[in-house]
Amino acid sequence: MSSDAAVVPFPACPLPLVDTDEVLLGHGSGGRLTAQLVEQLIVPAFRNPALETLDDAALVDAVGDGRRIAFTTDSYVITPIFFRGGDIGELAVNGTINDLAVSGARPLALSLAFILEEGLPLADLRRVIESARAAAARAGVPVVTGDTKVVGRGSADRLFINTSGIGVVPAGRRIGAAEVRAGDAIVVSGTIGDHGVAILSERHGLELDGELCSDTAPLHELAAIALAAAPHLHAMRDPTRGGLAATLVEIASRRGLAVTIDERALPVSDSVRGACEILGLDPLFVANEGKLAAFVPAAEADALVAALRAHPLGRNAARIGEVAAAPAGLVTVATTIGGERIVELPFAEMLPRIC
Amino acid sequence: MSSDAAVVPFPACPLPLVDTDEVLLGHGSGGRLTAQLVEQLIVPAFRNPALETLDDAALVDAVGDGRRIAFTTDSYVITPIFFRGGDIGELAVNGTINDLAVSGARPLALSLAFILEEGLPLADLRRVIESARAAAARAGVPVVTGDTKVVGRGSADRLFINTSGIGVVPAGRRIGAAEVRAGDAIVVSGTIGDHGVAILSERHGLELDGELCSDTAPLHELAAIALAAAPHLHAMRDPTRGGLAATLVEIASRRGLAVTIDERALPVSDSVRGACEILGLDPLFVANEGKLAAFVPAAEADALVAALRAHPLGRNAARIGEVAAAPAGLVTVATTIGGERIVELPFAEMLPRIC
Repeated sequence: MSSDAAVVPFPACPLPLVDTDEVLLGHGSGGRLTAQLVEQLIVPAFRNPALETLDDAALVDAVGDGRRIAFTTDSYVITPIFFRGGDIGELAVNGTINDLAVSGARPLALSLAFILEEGLPLADLRRVIESARAAAARAGVPVVTGDTKVVGRGSADRLFINTSGIGVVPAGRRIGAAEVRAGDAIVVSGTIGDHGVAILSERHGLELDGELCSDTAPLHELAAIALAAAPHLHAMRDPTRGGLAATLVEIASRRGLAVTIDERALPVSDSVRGACEILGLDPLFVANEGKLAAFVPAAEADALVAALRAHPLGRNAARIGEVAAAPAGLVTVATTIGGERIVELPFAEMLPRIC
Repeated sequence: MSSDAAVVPFPACPLPLVDTDEVLLGHGSGGRLTAQLVEQLIVPAFRNPALETLDDAALVDAVGDGRRIAFTTDSYVITPIFFRGGDIGELAVNGTINDLAVSGARPLALSLAFILEEGLPLADLRRVIESARAAAARAGVPVVTGDTKVVGRGSADRLFINTSGIGVVPAGRRIGAAEVRAGDAIVVSGTIGDHGVAILSERHGLELDGELCSDTAPLHELAAIALAAAPHLHAMRDPTRGGLAATLVEIASRRGLAVTIDERALPVSDSVRGACEILGLDPLFVANEGKLAAFVPAAEADALVAALRAHPLGRNAARIGEVAAAPAGLVTVATTIGGERIVELPFAEMLPRIC
């Protein structure tokens, strides 16, 4: 991805690392602690343009003809490994397809690496492999390489998966956070918060609502639809850990732009809304695993929403907000009761091991 | 990699899965249990030509001009994470560079994904990141994408790393296990068993010999030298888990060919030999992390050895054996005392979490 746009530190006002000499659960939350760890320990060590975009996939000029290889990695440590609407195998495959898709790439191939805890029932492993297989087949993306490691009892929690993926971005396609501009409209492809609320209810055995279900899904078709319907689309994201809020805060602070969201326009299912009220959660901060957020010139927003709605995964697509020049770096929400609030990245998310 | 050669089941006489309904430590050993898990659970689920080669990297036709993208993944769960001669960060970077290099690819980019246990000292994480950085810089391969997850205390053992990597294989280069032929000579780039013996001595606090040290090193330069010195080179491997024995048994059984090794020609350092005698290990079965095994037409073997010896990492390179048509699928060792023994893959290795 280009680095012609100014890259500002993220978060915009970097906090010092919290006063600890140990890794905290919050370092993996997708909140500020994660951002600090990445910005202060990892990015400085490996500094290079592809890494510094911190987009969902890195773009590598592998072939010298303008096409670039998109390359992405994610480890999955979700607990429980089986949940309403999916399991860790399907989640891992979809998640990596999604990181490629929102980077404007056609997904080409996946890797699948297991870390298994001694004593894991082979039946569970078979079930996870089968759902990973089904997810890869559904998306038409082959798993071409893999790895299996086993650690002793108590040295891992059942089963962790890393999926990496590669894809091809056509010559001339420039999308990514660096392309987001004042005047862009923000569109999401459907209801938010489904995955996180489903996991939370599963984990705690809450019988909140029978309809709560992870939204894990592959986004490559929606991404292709978006690119066709909004030819000047600037960026897409897959708002997972930290929810849509983390995506918006990251883009606002990184680009030095203002993001405003209309809370009334945010698609949230009744069951997620009800569960969030009971649990004291804001759906804006809850993880999604099958939703796409797009930043497009305002003139293309309506066509994008209409095109997304024609796909089963996009039927609740909505235009939810806009990007402006000021106040730089801030995300604000116009609330349902007519007020306005500032969205800040939580210090550490309330939901560890959500993906 | 091509699939024009007959692919035979590996191991040649597949054993039924051991009578267990749980994951065993041996499933991660690199021995027969690992082969069974991969062959019986994983490959059948994802069956495709790139995966089925089971070479160190999969080759993907991404760009349609004859060049292929090499893609590989490995998770590292080694314990201890710091050891004589390296640490998990350097090991992970080198290991993935090596999988690309022995596939005939020029390494292009790496990913780096951490699974951290809550409570890990940040100083340890910094040290691992620094050595990963140094290893990537030394090899000139950028880390372009990454991921960080944190799990609670007791849900992982300190720090696991997944590295994946991509590289480019030039058009027309056909190397891989499927290319190995009767008449090939087998060359290794240096002493074997160093990594495994160093880890074992570290883990058990053995003061066997001050010189015991992991051989972790990047092999991209040696691989390039090998390709130049032996223009008809058929295959290269990076014999890690299961040692050189696992590599030889896999190729012999997969290709239905005979492999014969001359034990007197095998480079083994005095300290590794001594440690192996005390510990009852055979260096042939002990992991390496910076050694290359090459299968080349016999006429090119001497030139290859000479070229490897001119590089610091190849100064102990040696021609150690040959490939023949029969007895199909068998690896035999001509022993130092003039006898002959058959090399079989161990059921489960004696050294869990060696990489």
